[in-house]
Amino acid sequence: MPAAAEAALAGGPAGPRALRPYLDLVLAALADGAARRAGPLPPGGPRAVAARVREAARPVLPDAGVGAEAALSGLVRLLAAGAADPADPHCAAHLHAPPLALAAAADLAAGALNPSLDSWDQAPAAAELEAEVAAAVAAEVHPGAARADALVTTGGTEANQLALLLARELLGPGVQVVTGANAHHSVHRAAWLLGLRAPHVVPTPRGVLDPAAVRDALGLLRPGPGGAPGPALVVGTAGTTDTGAVDPLPALADAAAAHGARLHVDAAYGGLLLLAPGRAHLVAGLDRAHTVALDLHKLGWQPIAAGFLAVRDDADLAPLAYSADYLSADDDTAAGLPALLHRSLRTTRRADVLKVAVTFRALGRAGVAELVEGTFAAAARLAELVGADPELELYAPPTLTTVLFRPAGADDAAVAALRRRLLVDGHAVLGRAEAGGRRWLKATLLNPHVQHGDLRNLLKLVTEAHRTAPAAPHRPQGAYPPHRQHRENGTAPDAR
Amino acid sequence: MPAAAEAALAGGPAGPRALRPYLDLVLAALADGAARRAGPLPPGGPRAVAARVREAARPVLPDAGVGAEAALSGLVRLLAAGAADPADPHCAAHLHAPPLALAAAADLAAGALNPSLDSWDQAPAAAELEAEVAAAVAAEVHPGAARADALVTTGGTEANQLALLLARELLGPGVQVVTGANAHHSVHRAAWLLGLRAPHVVPTPRGVLDPAAVRDALGLLRPGPGGAPGPALVVGTAGTTDTGAVDPLPALADAAAAHGARLHVDAAYGGLLLLAPGRAHLVAGLDRAHTVALDLHKLGWQPIAAGFLAVRDDADLAPLAYSADYLSADDDTAAGLPALLHRSLRTTRRADVLKVAVTFRALGRAGVAELVEGTFAAAARLAELVGADPELELYAPPTLTTVLFRPAGADDAAVAALRRRLLVDGHAVLGRAEAGGRRWLKATLLNPHVQHGDLRNLLKLVTEAHRTAPAAPHRPQGAYPPHRQHRENGTAPDAR
Repeated sequence: MPAAAEAALAGGPAGPRALRPYLDLVLAALADGAARRAGPLPPGGPRAVAARVREAARPVLPDAGVGAEAALSGLVRLLAAGAADPADPHCAAHLHAPPLALAAAADLAAGALNPSLDSWDQAPAAAELEAEVAAAVAAEVHPGAARADALVTTGGTEANQLALLLARELLGPGVQVVTGANAHHSVHRAAWLLGLRAPHVVPTPRGVLDPAAVRDALGLLRPGPGGAPGPALVVGTAGTTDTGAVDPLPALADAAAAHGARLHVDAAYGGLLLLAPGRAHLVAGLDRAHTVALDLHKLGWQPIAAGFLAVRDDADLAPLAYSADYLSADDDTAAGLPALLHRSLRTTRRADVLKVAVTFRALGRAGVAELVEGTFAAAARLAELVGADPELELYAPPTLTTVLFRPAGADDAAVAALRRRLLVDGHAVLGRAEAGGRRWLKATLLNPHVQHGDLRNLLKLVTEAHRTAPAAPHRPQGAYPPHRQHRENGTAPDAR
Repeated sequence: MPAAAEAALAGGPAGPRALRPYLDLVLAALADGAARRAGPLPPGGPRAVAARVREAARPVLPDAGVGAEAALSGLVRLLAAGAADPADPHCAAHLHAPPLALAAAADLAAGALNPSLDSWDQAPAAAELEAEVAAAVAAEVHPGAARADALVTTGGTEANQLALLLARELLGPGVQVVTGANAHHSVHRAAWLLGLRAPHVVPTPRGVLDPAAVRDALGLLRPGPGGAPGPALVVGTAGTTDTGAVDPLPALADAAAAHGARLHVDAAYGGLLLLAPGRAHLVAGLDRAHTVALDLHKLGWQPIAAGFLAVRDDADLAPLAYSADYLSADDDTAAGLPALLHRSLRTTRRADVLKVAVTFRALGRAGVAELVEGTFAAAARLAELVGADPELELYAPPTLTTVLFRPAGADDAAVAALRRRLLVDGHAVLGRAEAGGRRWLKATLLNPHVQHGDLRNLLKLVTEAHRTAPAAPHRPQGAYPPHRQHRENGTAPDAR
């Protein structure tokens, strides 16, 4: 055996004693890494980060181990010092949530006990807890639907994939996906994965689907076997990645129903608003969808992964029926051992549901709603600050918590270069989006604790960086390392 | 805001201080739960476990939160008390590994910082660390292949899915999967998901694929466009779930090559043997596969998830090429910001690679090899003990660490009932497998620390339970709760 400490297990009665010194090392390394970073992300750009990772991580697999303390401290510090930390108020590019400490702590137990949700005899309590949480999520999305259910996924992408798969199996492989130009890319990737025709894309010049345009598109579908327009799945979005826009869900549901089409809504961003009485109206109509994708690692403050697919009628899950003798033989199932393989396309599955259960119980609806309100307030405040600053231009008041803006007078290339410059300097992590025919900086606010002063400073960073932008392209120190250039188009970084 | 503590974030400079008291609660609850369980799994069967979960977990989403301490302590204790804990020597049913404490601790940092591996600006250091670990894994599987690479997956199932997807994209949708009756069910499920024809299944009466039978099957495939036999993907297995058998990989590679077929090997179980000099010969020939699935949450002692798909030539990954403007616009990529979407079909992705990196560095090859040897020694010892016990029958000496055995004279139904009885009594978690036309109890040993006495006691539990087995079926107290019966075939549990 290796030195006893390195080989100690996380589970069993001795597990907590084995974990404690390692957790101490992890906490110290997290603190040290955050102090070294001293900002939302490390300065220097990809090249500098890559060099530090290679320095600290190699050899990845030495002949003789370096021991638990050196490996754990070194690599956790490396990860923290090199993180784009969503807990920093100036890290606001993506739907990339800062997790709650209690959720991250709960998740440790899932890792230490390692329940696997593919058979009851690997996860007795975890399987039942998952069923409880799934039922609760289902009841929020489809209240009053007696057979509502929900599956746990790795995120919105897997949930969208499952929604398309169910449509394929329930309506046939000729099913046509009809979605908006504002939909998430994973809808297209899922259609490709599943061997479906490419989705029909309805233009969304105003950022959201026009139900009349969806009706028109459905009417023009190639005829199905009976001569009527063929089977279709309409995919709407409740919270787009670009602007946080929400499609008009009730009218979309009417359009789908008129055609006899299924409706899936990708509410990976907006779904949690159902729990916030002051904001639930923004996603009204979700209950009319056959399937709904949710992601609590976005608005929901969970560590990755915490996705769900909610279904209005669990009969729609029949295509996932599946058993494997070694996990759920028929006689075991008949004898009362719950089968689990029909709950996912994955086999081995971590108990991602534990952290969600702990968060729901600890905070309750009221606590979750307060976090939602704090985040919305921050977005509204940022939009106000932008609106009041003559050096900046606001795209539109935010629908959810995404604020698009740009330096007044900057062209699209300058906006992209400004974003890269803030990244490479380590000053701010902002996203980008095309909207209304122009490119914008995107602040996706998910941190409920962000302060007025943080937001003011963020905007100051932007206006100052724009004022001092170099007139001509230059090649900064942060060039991406040559050894991986063949994967990345072969050019050096350019933080214009 | 909710009470400050509940809403505290895991990241940032204040994260470690916020995490510490919660981690203390988690460790105490893990210890308390393990003490309450006092065995490999909770007694009482599904009904009793479900009742305890409902009692402790409801309401899942109260109006007012119960606070962090109550939620965290209550639910973690519940999960631990209701776990089938793979760290217990009598929990050995499945490829369900007891995680190393240092790996579980490292994973906390991935949760707290929440890097998401879909764009560089969400995971600067994590993205580079993943590339480093992927390169190291690739070099182990395909040494000497200059363009070897590896993708991180949620497990063998996703790796098998990707292998079939690559075959579909490289060879066309008419590709025929040819595999053994011994292959993992996920191969079949992946073909269905991807819209491929059902796999051609070659019988494996001796537990492993016969390369001559594979050649015959390939020769009979329906002709492709040019009249020659159509394109095929041969899927072999290095470590079956039922018996731990390893297909004859070099001969399988020859058979595939003779036909011009691709070869994928599902080495989810056996892949790690590459790191153990004394056992690597068991999986010799892996390097001849185009793609190889590995799972370090099996033999590898990682918390779920820790899967990989190794590819011999990264040109084969071209079908995964993908970009999305908000994550990796072309001008950002050209400017040197690494794009990541082509590394997975998922979008948001947790940094599962951190715990693997820490484990590799801490233990080194030598430490990993010692854990492998300890596990193999336990399996060999168990087989010896079975062989020496006149009340037990051994299926065969183990190839890897899976030992099949049964009470002498028991019929198949009695074997299944005995397994269920041990589960419901909370005494042992053993699996089941059909092999050589009969049903066996299955011990999948993955705990490197298991002692001679543990194994002896495990067998004693089996022989005593068999001796005292009720003559006729009865319905024990552990009946499965009625409210979920519609999902589970509607019958009460029966631990005959």
